[in-house]
Amino acid sequence: MKKEDFFKEMKEGNKHLQNRKKEAVVQEESVSIIPLGGINEIGKNMTVLEHGNDMFIIDCGLAFPDMDMPGVDIVIPDFNYVEKNKSKLKGIVLTHGHEDHIGALSYFLKKISVPVYGTQLTVSLVKGKLKEAGILNKSKLNVKRVGEKVRFGCFEVTFLHVNHSIPDACALVISTPVGIIFHTGDFKVDYTPIEGSAIDLARLGELGQKGVLLLMSDSTNAEKLGFSPSEQLVGDSFDRLFKIAEKNRIIIATFASNVHRVHQVIKAAENYGRKVTVSGRSMVNVVNTAIELGYLKPKPGTMIDIDKANKFADNEIVIVTTGSQGEPLSALRRMSNGEHRRIEVSKNDFIIISATPIPGNEKFVNKVINDLMLLGADVIYERIYDTHVSGHAYQGEQKLLMNLLKPKYFMPVHGEYKHLKKNAKLAESMGIGENNVIIPELGREIVVTSKSIKYGRAVPSGNVMVDGLGVGDVGNVVLQERKLLSGDGLIVVIVVIEKSSSNLLAGPDIVSRGFVYVRESEAMMDTAKKLAREVVENCKVQNIKKWVDIKSKIKEKLADFFYRKTQRTPMILPIIEEIVRVK
Amino acid sequence: MKKEDFFKEMKEGNKHLQNRKKEAVVQEESVSIIPLGGINEIGKNMTVLEHGNDMFIIDCGLAFPDMDMPGVDIVIPDFNYVEKNKSKLKGIVLTHGHEDHIGALSYFLKKISVPVYGTQLTVSLVKGKLKEAGILNKSKLNVKRVGEKVRFGCFEVTFLHVNHSIPDACALVISTPVGIIFHTGDFKVDYTPIEGSAIDLARLGELGQKGVLLLMSDSTNAEKLGFSPSEQLVGDSFDRLFKIAEKNRIIIATFASNVHRVHQVIKAAENYGRKVTVSGRSMVNVVNTAIELGYLKPKPGTMIDIDKANKFADNEIVIVTTGSQGEPLSALRRMSNGEHRRIEVSKNDFIIISATPIPGNEKFVNKVINDLMLLGADVIYERIYDTHVSGHAYQGEQKLLMNLLKPKYFMPVHGEYKHLKKNAKLAESMGIGENNVIIPELGREIVVTSKSIKYGRAVPSGNVMVDGLGVGDVGNVVLQERKLLSGDGLIVVIVVIEKSSSNLLAGPDIVSRGFVYVRESEAMMDTAKKLAREVVENCKVQNIKKWVDIKSKIKEKLADFFYRKTQRTPMILPIIEEIVRVK
Repeated sequence: MKKEDFFKEMKEGNKHLQNRKKEAVVQEESVSIIPLGGINEIGKNMTVLEHGNDMFIIDCGLAFPDMDMPGVDIVIPDFNYVEKNKSKLKGIVLTHGHEDHIGALSYFLKKISVPVYGTQLTVSLVKGKLKEAGILNKSKLNVKRVGEKVRFGCFEVTFLHVNHSIPDACALVISTPVGIIFHTGDFKVDYTPIEGSAIDLARLGELGQKGVLLLMSDSTNAEKLGFSPSEQLVGDSFDRLFKIAEKNRIIIATFASNVHRVHQVIKAAENYGRKVTVSGRSMVNVVNTAIELGYLKPKPGTMIDIDKANKFADNEIVIVTTGSQGEPLSALRRMSNGEHRRIEVSKNDFIIISATPIPGNEKFVNKVINDLMLLGADVIYERIYDTHVSGHAYQGEQKLLMNLLKPKYFMPVHGEYKHLKKNAKLAESMGIGENNVIIPELGREIVVTSKSIKYGRAVPSGNVMVDGLGVGDVGNVVLQERKLLSGDGLIVVIVVIEKSSSNLLAGPDIVSRGFVYVRESEAMMDTAKKLAREVVENCKVQNIKKWVDIKSKIKEKLADFFYRKTQRTPMILPIIEEIVRVK
Repeated sequence: MKKEDFFKEMKEGNKHLQNRKKEAVVQEESVSIIPLGGINEIGKNMTVLEHGNDMFIIDCGLAFPDMDMPGVDIVIPDFNYVEKNKSKLKGIVLTHGHEDHIGALSYFLKKISVPVYGTQLTVSLVKGKLKEAGILNKSKLNVKRVGEKVRFGCFEVTFLHVNHSIPDACALVISTPVGIIFHTGDFKVDYTPIEGSAIDLARLGELGQKGVLLLMSDSTNAEKLGFSPSEQLVGDSFDRLFKIAEKNRIIIATFASNVHRVHQVIKAAENYGRKVTVSGRSMVNVVNTAIELGYLKPKPGTMIDIDKANKFADNEIVIVTTGSQGEPLSALRRMSNGEHRRIEVSKNDFIIISATPIPGNEKFVNKVINDLMLLGADVIYERIYDTHVSGHAYQGEQKLLMNLLKPKYFMPVHGEYKHLKKNAKLAESMGIGENNVIIPELGREIVVTSKSIKYGRAVPSGNVMVDGLGVGDVGNVVLQERKLLSGDGLIVVIVVIEKSSSNLLAGPDIVSRGFVYVRESEAMMDTAKKLAREVVENCKVQNIKKWVDIKSKIKEKLADFFYRKTQRTPMILPIIEEIVRVK
């Protein structure tokens, strides 16, 4: 045998070996995790889990639009990947009833009908939404109790009670062909919760002993040192404040969905012999649902209709309201600018903002506080009063969970990049190896086997904007136009031309909006018309007939003119109307 | 004498008496204080003081536009009242060189030429601005040292050193015909300042012993308990962080005008053998001015040009930069999205945000942090690292000042209503009677005598918006249009009509911007055209010829149609062109 041949054979032998290895890798069981939302953002949580022909989804939430999405009502995940693979889809499981986890469900179910599973309150809140969307009767909603299981092909999901700012919140224990995946949902550890029991740490320890492959953990508060305070702190604080305000009417603003907080308001009110009334549509919905299902248990006669609120003396009533984020149309905002139909704020009001501003809302919240104070009310909003605690775990709780569950792999979820990064670092500090910690990306598959975790392919993902009835018809072009229009306004230039002769029959006329106060700028507008006329006439002389060319020449000329005059760059919109003359 | 006559005489006698009393009141000396900015807002500080024919102004600052002022560059005070009384105006005195105290000066001096007084750094920073505005040679700038006085008719103003986040900041001791008015400017009490001395509390005590009529005090941090930490804390923190980052390139972002902070960066850099370079135009200006005047004293060779930054190893350099508020065009923002011409951020960068977000900027700041982290950099931004302290007094310092100065009257200034209110309550808690504390209102005179303080007349005031070269030409109508355009976009409907016959010669054509993605909405647009055509034809049949009527019918029809189709309310702009046919 020649040397070359020998080497050739060796190589081919190696190839065979390599191929066999590849096959072995291919055959190793793996589960794909594909985040379609909630990663590098707060909101629109949605995660796809997949193995072979089995697929299910965790949560289907909405996000609120950023400042750079003017006019957009809400943002939902891109469902394209799931639509293309809908034959595999076995169901959706919901961790809890917050908008960022259930708010996109009605849009999803309109496209793909699939069974939905969640705990009692979660499903009841979803019900209301699907009813509004007119698809309740076509939907397959299933209530599961804590400890119960759902099977999606090879996956088995168990609901596990966790503490959060809404009752019935769950973590998910997902049994998969590669091992146990633990998804925390939104959670905190509250040893003295207002309702229900503390998270069952012993159960987590048991899971940890059996072996958890991957922990996916809520990173919202991964920046915060120590442990999140118990909801009970707020109760103590309410007690003190109700005493201070014993002669005042008390108004408390919080998140519509914070059933625990409303629970505490009712308790404090009952202690002090006050009635409770609710203002704000979304809060009325949640409170009514919670009372119906027994999550809130006010004494008979405690709750009164807001129409009857004015019949009670100031010191006999508490008003719970939406608007803790200063939202423009919320009840508290309307109270602050005198536009609330039933409640007029004045000197004898003692107002408690029982929430902290979500980043981006600070200015709205400040405005509401200032306006309420200008009406003479006392407003309690500072952190020192302990009128709010977060529903998300701090660093201490993250570490506690990692210690109990002892996961092989760690994936931070639910947060901006800085939160994910912090949580990843925490995991590393807890001894989970750097290569066993993976920070997910939006629309990027993560492939997990019993021996590895790594990035896979990319799938379509991103923001689908909902504006009125339109879902996805506002894209980047439309947003770009809106931003341009809002910056320096608009100049419309209208020219009517005779087709055969290219003669100007009418115009150029100029209409502006959002640019300058027109009455004070007549001379500038006259010059602009003159310039546009020159452009059109020059085009005729030069035999330029294509509209697109004439338009771009008008645009250029006027953009330059207006910039020199004002240093502004309005959108310039030339419109040419062509007329065939009838003799 | 008849009974009636007797009573009549009595009444007239009383009237005379009353009139005499009124005169006495009129003759009692009084000083008017008129805030034209800085009240119920952060920014555009400007206050008028007046007595008889003597008037002077404290500060002339700008504010940054709110979210509801799209396209607006800056906001300045309404100068109308001063313009109408300019014959009385003797001068302007500046407390310190921050934009919210000097940023509107160039606009003011273009209208009214008047002498300006301030300390060295303040005047130098103003100089740069006036030079840019092309009015430096016409301006009368005067440098005053701490302790020196300026006379404005019956007023005498003495500059008094205070601690703040820029050197050369002053409080003003104003001697008036009714007594001493003490205006704090922006201040804090820093016993261990980085540069210069601590505020001279003994001097304040002396003033208090002599008698202060009115204290006007900076309320920015009136919500904060205790005492503001010393700038030295930041120095200690830099020292720790420089040690941690000994192998990294260090980038520190702070406010362009925070000379003390830059001072500390230079000190830390020199301790660790690093060079310092500056990025961001406004910061380069301030640092150069501060070095020229001796407020910064880097060792020879410490400061290097940014063009040379790349010649040094990562651990040999510190970059100080603007963008601590995440401002869209700032140097740090450009670094974060890879658009900075000279600095490319990567894994080996250690970035310190040496500032806290101003309310409203949180989302911008978070975006920058996330983006920098995505590039692999370490970013230090949390409060726990003590990389920033405020330049404004906390509650403890307010009380200290009140205790030393023992003012008869108290007026909180420089803050939103909630800050003013808190500071007013603090004053009351310090024993200043409720009737001796007055919360100022924008554009409302406050009349102070030796025996009383109360509200007087209202004068024109408010926001004058600057957009490009236009000052005040963007008003509420234009803003309203911009907001409308940004919300749901625009529909232009063009109709060409023959004058004599009212026949449609061309159109209706429809052009939309910022509304929907047009290619996907052709059918809707076709229907809209048809509807517009029907309106025009109906008008002809009904002999409706007035443009305004035809336009409003088109508007109504299409607004209704588009709302039903999309639940959006775009601005609808019908344009009619009329043509007289030449036979």
